[in-house]
Amino acid sequence: MSLLKGNTFISALDVTDINALAAKALAYKANPLTDKKLGEGKRIGCLFLNPSMRTRLSTQIAAQNLGMEAIVFNVGNEGWQLEFEEEAIMSGTTVEHVKDAAPIFGKYFDILAIRTFPSLVNKEDDYSELYINQFIKYAGLPVVSLESATLHPLQSLTDVITIKETFKEQRKPKVVLTWAPHVKPLPQCVANSFAQWMTEWGEVDFVVTHPEDYELDQKFTGNAPIVYDQDEALKDADYVYVKNWSTYNDYGKIYSNEPEWMLTQEKLKLTNPANGGAKVMHCLPVRRNVELSDEILDSPNSIVTQEAGNRVWAAQAVLSELLKK
Amino acid sequence: MSLLKGNTFISALDVTDINALAAKALAYKANPLTDKKLGEGKRIGCLFLNPSMRTRLSTQIAAQNLGMEAIVFNVGNEGWQLEFEEEAIMSGTTVEHVKDAAPIFGKYFDILAIRTFPSLVNKEDDYSELYINQFIKYAGLPVVSLESATLHPLQSLTDVITIKETFKEQRKPKVVLTWAPHVKPLPQCVANSFAQWMTEWGEVDFVVTHPEDYELDQKFTGNAPIVYDQDEALKDADYVYVKNWSTYNDYGKIYSNEPEWMLTQEKLKLTNPANGGAKVMHCLPVRRNVELSDEILDSPNSIVTQEAGNRVWAAQAVLSELLKK
Amino acid sequence: MSLLKGNTFISALDVTDINALAAKALAYKANPLTDKKLGEGKRIGCLFLNPSMRTRLSTQIAAQNLGMEAIVFNVGNEGWQLEFEEEAIMSGTTVEHVKDAAPIFGKYFDILAIRTFPSLVNKEDDYSELYINQFIKYAGLPVVSLESATLHPLQSLTDVITIKETFKEQRKPKVVLTWAPHVKPLPQCVANSFAQWMTEWGEVDFVVTHPEDYELDQKFTGNAPIVYDQDEALKDADYVYVKNWSTYNDYGKIYSNEPEWMLTQEKLKLTNPANGGAKVMHCLPVRRNVELSDEILDSPNSIVTQEAGNRVWAAQAVLSELLKK
Repeated sequence: MSLLKGNTFISALDVTDINALAAKALAYKANPLTDKKLGEGKRIGCLFLNPSMRTRLSTQIAAQNLGMEAIVFNVGNEGWQLEFEEEAIMSGTTVEHVKDAAPIFGKYFDILAIRTFPSLVNKEDDYSELYINQFIKYAGLPVVSLESATLHPLQSLTDVITIKETFKEQRKPKVVLTWAPHVKPLPQCVANSFAQWMTEWGEVDFVVTHPEDYELDQKFTGNAPIVYDQDEALKDADYVYVKNWSTYNDYGKIYSNEPEWMLTQEKLKLTNPANGGAKVMHCLPVRRNVELSDEILDSPNSIVTQEAGNRVWAAQAVLSELLKK
Repeated sequence: MSLLKGNTFISALDVTDINALAAKALAYKANPLTDKKLGEGKRIGCLFLNPSMRTRLSTQIAAQNLGMEAIVFNVGNEGWQLEFEEEAIMSGTTVEHVKDAAPIFGKYFDILAIRTFPSLVNKEDDYSELYINQFIKYAGLPVVSLESATLHPLQSLTDVITIKETFKEQRKPKVVLTWAPHVKPLPQCVANSFAQWMTEWGEVDFVVTHPEDYELDQKFTGNAPIVYDQDEALKDADYVYVKNWSTYNDYGKIYSNEPEWMLTQEKLKLTNPANGGAKVMHCLPVRRNVELSDEILDSPNSIVTQEAGNRVWAAQAVLSELLKK
Repeated sequence: MSLLKGNTFISALDVTDINALAAKALAYKANPLTDKKLGEGKRIGCLFLNPSMRTRLSTQIAAQNLGMEAIVFNVGNEGWQLEFEEEAIMSGTTVEHVKDAAPIFGKYFDILAIRTFPSLVNKEDDYSELYINQFIKYAGLPVVSLESATLHPLQSLTDVITIKETFKEQRKPKVVLTWAPHVKPLPQCVANSFAQWMTEWGEVDFVVTHPEDYELDQKFTGNAPIVYDQDEALKDADYVYVKNWSTYNDYGKIYSNEPEWMLTQEKLKLTNPANGGAKVMHCLPVRRNVELSDEILDSPNSIVTQEAGNRVWAAQAVLSELLKK
């Protein structure tokens, strides 16, 4: 049975069994080349409308591990700016409409993977996932999100994998998503997505903590407790997921930079003391000594490198499921 | 017998039998991997001095289908600016002379594919095809144009293929090349090239229509009738090829934007009524509602996606002929 | 026995036997695909923090010849700016610390190849090779320099190869490294590196000539005679290696552009007359008629194309040694 409901992977809601998909990824980690024949003669197009490092490299590697040919295309740098609005009169700076570009990708590739960030200006467009949905609508082939306006599902699947492979006790771990300071307004994608996957996975006790006015869209946080007191939230945590995001309600703003929200070793002492404190996660890139201190990142509590390494296996599991369709 | 006269593909005049080359391309469309062994151990370098989407992707895919390794290099972004003038004293912004760069590409690759746009300032340099000819002169290996200063032969071969595969009647189709409005001065390449290929192919009745003062170089339009009245030109057309270009005589200018030259459904009624109106072609990217209206592009008359999909088979046929040399 | 002392290739001092490594490269030139199985299932990441043409292409080709998968990543263009200072508070323009990025490359690749230019501002950081050493320290996998702050070892190995394959007499050739004018301040890398390799190789009589105040770091020139009179230095030379560099002592400056230092045919008459004058080498790119005249570059004395072609075999020999570890 397929672990994906349909032909797209842009959200946790596209997955039939998150736990099984994570298990499949971990099986690839143990045997990377076991499905080297699966993608033979198939081709994935990786379109980047925005910069990327881990996502770009891990997706290329995952495709190669499955025997696929991967072609990377930096839409803005190597091509030109796309238009996404219906009925636009294109007398400005956009050179090609997604309605014309997408179906051609559909002719060239077997799978399309796309990174497209939010504007952080037009909340309605961003939260309707206008850009990636236009690609899905017009490309007519399987589409994988490499991070879209509101979600980053390959990152979140990676996070599930990393918790699954590191937590050895016979109980649900407590997982805390905490807001962290940053110097510029960032998307809510990683936080939204992590909240959505933790909730849908259901194998953890999940808590969110952030300053007031940094509420996320409840569509993604669901019934997770929202705690404004970080110290209280951190108590007895097994995993602390650190991430900055800009405001959702009054969209795309930084209200304050709150340096006291940066996680420190002192605060880690509030977390699960039996295991030497919680494991600390972050999607990277991380601004050292702004979002997270050197002392945390360089300590054994940090599992950010293991987490980033797992990006390959998350991508490989998803591409494999799409190839089998 | 080779379908190419020599070791270059930069113009219709390099082809011995356009119809046979188009047939070969359509055979690849039916069986993409039939010559997967032909390019084994061979390597194509794809050099982009200018942006590209379809040409870049379709050439990479064509090379992969033939078993070649393709290496893409964005000359300006990833390297530096090249000098093309003989005897230049290089104390300005150009970092390397084509006389030094080209022979090295000749050592690294088996085939060299190059995109290099016109300046639209120096007509003499542009129309002498200075840049691509310097590459041919100094590289010493087969050279394929991915669009040069005055021509876009892989696009035009694609256009031949697309007409050949869609026209089913036992007569010559009427093909009209019409000028369209645009917001900035564009090269004449696609129009020149389409005119040249239609004329050399000889299997169509070919007509050109544009506002006065937008004449193309007669070297390319040959004996094709030039009609200044678009309505008259469109009468009974089977194919309408829509494209903007800047002025050729008073070089690189926009005289007027003439919105009434944008093709509409109303105008399409003038074309072949027996078939529900002419098929509409465009090389893409297209500025919607400036060059061509949504109503045309979203109608069954538009075959622009099919056309763009055929880019792969045009490139594959040409690379195949060069590999066989 | 390995021809490399350890797991890195950033300097002549990393090589156990320069002559044997050059011989290995020339064996690959004769039979490029002889080790096509060696790199099967292995992956090289080529990271460019700065522009590159020959180095980029030749490394990709060398990897392909060894059966490896090569992934190229333009760190600045496709990703973001890295931080290299320890304990930096990253509230500025750098987005990710090398401490976080490098170990992830270590998880994704089997070999890491990196180009990272000097600042030409902070001499201490540049000459401590801060950037590439940070990668080596944190990546935990074999690292190859594609040119670092002070050295360009793949270029210098290429230069050894080129002298070795072109010099047929039973004596040591006289090799002169001469400074040449340029329009902007350039790194000392190529000159440092050439001096280091000539000295360590030990199979040539090596002389350096430059205007006063353009001294290189003696760490690299060792006991090589430094001659301020170019004519005297050129006398009886078999090879003249032409290169500009900015000042080392008063760091990163241009004191004067000294057009009389540009090598001319007249000056070449001072060199080995029995062989029609010295062979002229340059790493390219070269500013024609600034660094070197057309008359030299277009003469049979110039072997710059042969030299650049040999870049492939130098890279292939080094990658092969690292793969065998």
